[in-house]
Amino acid sequence: MQMSNRITAFQCSPIRRLSPYARDAVRRGVKVYHLNIGQPDIKTPPQVIEAVQQYDHSIIAYGNSEGLQELREALPLYYKKYGLNVDSEDILVTTGGSEALQFAFMTLCDPYDEIIIPEPYYTNVASFAHSAMVNLVPVTSKMEEGFSLPDISEFEKRITRKTGAILLCSPNNPTGHVYTKDELLQLLQLCEKHDIFLIVDEVYREFCYDGKEFTSILSFEEFSDRIICVDSFSKRYSMCGSRIGALVSKNKEVLEHALKLAQARLCPPDIEQVAACAALKTDDSYLCEVRSEYERRRDFIVNALKKIDGVKVGNPKGAFYLVAELPIDDAERFATFMLQDFDLNGETVMVAPCEDFYVTEGLGRRQVRIAYVLNTDDLAKAAACIEAGLKAYRSQVMGL
Amino acid sequence: MQMSNRITAFQCSPIRRLSPYARDAVRRGVKVYHLNIGQPDIKTPPQVIEAVQQYDHSIIAYGNSEGLQELREALPLYYKKYGLNVDSEDILVTTGGSEALQFAFMTLCDPYDEIIIPEPYYTNVASFAHSAMVNLVPVTSKMEEGFSLPDISEFEKRITRKTGAILLCSPNNPTGHVYTKDELLQLLQLCEKHDIFLIVDEVYREFCYDGKEFTSILSFEEFSDRIICVDSFSKRYSMCGSRIGALVSKNKEVLEHALKLAQARLCPPDIEQVAACAALKTDDSYLCEVRSEYERRRDFIVNALKKIDGVKVGNPKGAFYLVAELPIDDAERFATFMLQDFDLNGETVMVAPCEDFYVTEGLGRRQVRIAYVLNTDDLAKAAACIEAGLKAYRSQVMGL
Repeated sequence: MQMSNRITAFQCSPIRRLSPYARDAVRRGVKVYHLNIGQPDIKTPPQVIEAVQQYDHSIIAYGNSEGLQELREALPLYYKKYGLNVDSEDILVTTGGSEALQFAFMTLCDPYDEIIIPEPYYTNVASFAHSAMVNLVPVTSKMEEGFSLPDISEFEKRITRKTGAILLCSPNNPTGHVYTKDELLQLLQLCEKHDIFLIVDEVYREFCYDGKEFTSILSFEEFSDRIICVDSFSKRYSMCGSRIGALVSKNKEVLEHALKLAQARLCPPDIEQVAACAALKTDDSYLCEVRSEYERRRDFIVNALKKIDGVKVGNPKGAFYLVAELPIDDAERFATFMLQDFDLNGETVMVAPCEDFYVTEGLGRRQVRIAYVLNTDDLAKAAACIEAGLKAYRSQVMGL
Repeated sequence: MQMSNRITAFQCSPIRRLSPYARDAVRRGVKVYHLNIGQPDIKTPPQVIEAVQQYDHSIIAYGNSEGLQELREALPLYYKKYGLNVDSEDILVTTGGSEALQFAFMTLCDPYDEIIIPEPYYTNVASFAHSAMVNLVPVTSKMEEGFSLPDISEFEKRITRKTGAILLCSPNNPTGHVYTKDELLQLLQLCEKHDIFLIVDEVYREFCYDGKEFTSILSFEEFSDRIICVDSFSKRYSMCGSRIGALVSKNKEVLEHALKLAQARLCPPDIEQVAACAALKTDDSYLCEVRSEYERRRDFIVNALKKIDGVKVGNPKGAFYLVAELPIDDAERFATFMLQDFDLNGETVMVAPCEDFYVTEGLGRRQVRIAYVLNTDDLAKAAACIEAGLKAYRSQVMGL
């Protein structure tokens, strides 16, 4: 009996791969600060929970494959706040942004087709690519350049007859880079020149710092036919567990074909969609406060990490991640060490090693992704663990 | 810009394809009896809704990729009632049985690999096969043989080096056939001989009629290494909208690899899993009553259809579907006619044309799948619509 090559070809997500060690640590009585996963400690807006508590259907029935009509009709009002012109007909509600990415891959690409992506990138995209048998073609963005868009010629060089799309995430997971209007325009012009799609994952849309303005790909109406926007309620309203996202496109053919995939899986989860409807009624002040809180955390953790000997930090401007380069040989080994062999006063941290955030072999080996999803008190303790952990690792493992 | 071949190669699910016509009918003021989709009118157990109403997490957070631990630990007790030995470690909670099927396909098959399946089969499987680029290889089961298992030699003939698994659904959607212990044993022996997997979709496990005993594939412990069971809460507890299912296997390698796919999509929806936990506490009398109700409906609709001139009905022993052969030229055309051009006192029915439930070209053209998920009063009216609709179609469209 054989497993498929497509599935043996890839490893578990590095975001979750070390979870068994984290559970072991907890069993040993060690407290683990989870910087490995984008699970905010921010409260879900209370009216979301209230809407769940008021759920009173007598049958939890199949809904529309396109998503709850109420939700599809409410979303355009949300986009309108950002000056974006989206119709309910442009929206396919998905089971998380994850499903929207999968639908986009399946809709645009056949096996062995290619998607061009700046690396480091959100590593779970690799799993979606492997299962769709799509090859990711990387363009490396560099820490010393703030992980900004590599020169457009680097993208153009990689376009072949097999290229289905370029995929971006803005604000970026894992680098925190927020793509500028000019960067996006350059990419769109390139996509037009070569007649390919641009997919942009904007699930962190609200999380832009330093007064930086966010440019949504949906604002480029003249290119709307080649744009697919991936969206999600998860981070925005701290409701990751609901798994409600959306695929948004003005291209009718894309939606029509993606709908086939949606119909096969019948519908997104019903109660969670009711929760999502309530989330859209959240007062704008909630998102303002959440953004300020993350900005405070970003400032705090970037400063704390920069103070540690030999640690380099990217220049995160959005989302709630950063990539840090550590004075070590192997970030996966370090992350494992932190869970298995280390504690500082009964505490340790879990980070995501970055090697799997790169397609290019050998890159990111000394980098980790840190999700600053904890309050600053916890971040202070986590930073202290990292500092002490680095010392311990360098002496005990690297023999320095 | 090109869409993928894999997605242009298949049509929308026939179960949902005609929905726009149904909406038009409703707009014209015509009441539509939905016999096209397995959406029961049975109430969800009240404690499921109560559990939702008591959901009081302050953050709807990511859960384990494997599923809520409480749910994984409660499920073995459910299986134990049927004498089945399942550990929580054997269970991957999925977003519907649909996701379990997709995980199974992706885990076992590379593009152009094959899965052997008795036809007619649950047509959405074709969409999963198309998106995974897996070829379905049919073995035709026949109405005149009660859609029982075709001779085992028919399966053996079709096994090649590309065969990853045989896929069954028992009780069967759409035929209502319940595979016997002997049929399952023959298939397992064949799978062992050729070292392939057997996947069995048992989401209708409880719905067996005429006192017929159900044999779960999970009871064949000596073959457990090559068995994948697909399960779901949808039909059992009338909570289709929650999208909670499971992939169950004793094969550690299967689970380990399927977990990679599960980790990429992060977790199943959280609130719906809480609902599923409550569903498992449902008193056995609920399922007994539901089974009796469906048996009554089965008896009613089979009798009503058999009375209509020229209609042949399969011999459904389980699930809540039947395949009927109608005295017409084209079931899709008939189904569309019923929605667009027909009503009986302001009422009509929507049925699922069966051609897409077959891989073999040309089969099922005169067949429809009928889901008897309505109460007998509504079924009586639906049957009257079918009878009058057939007359009208034969005269107006076929010129008979």
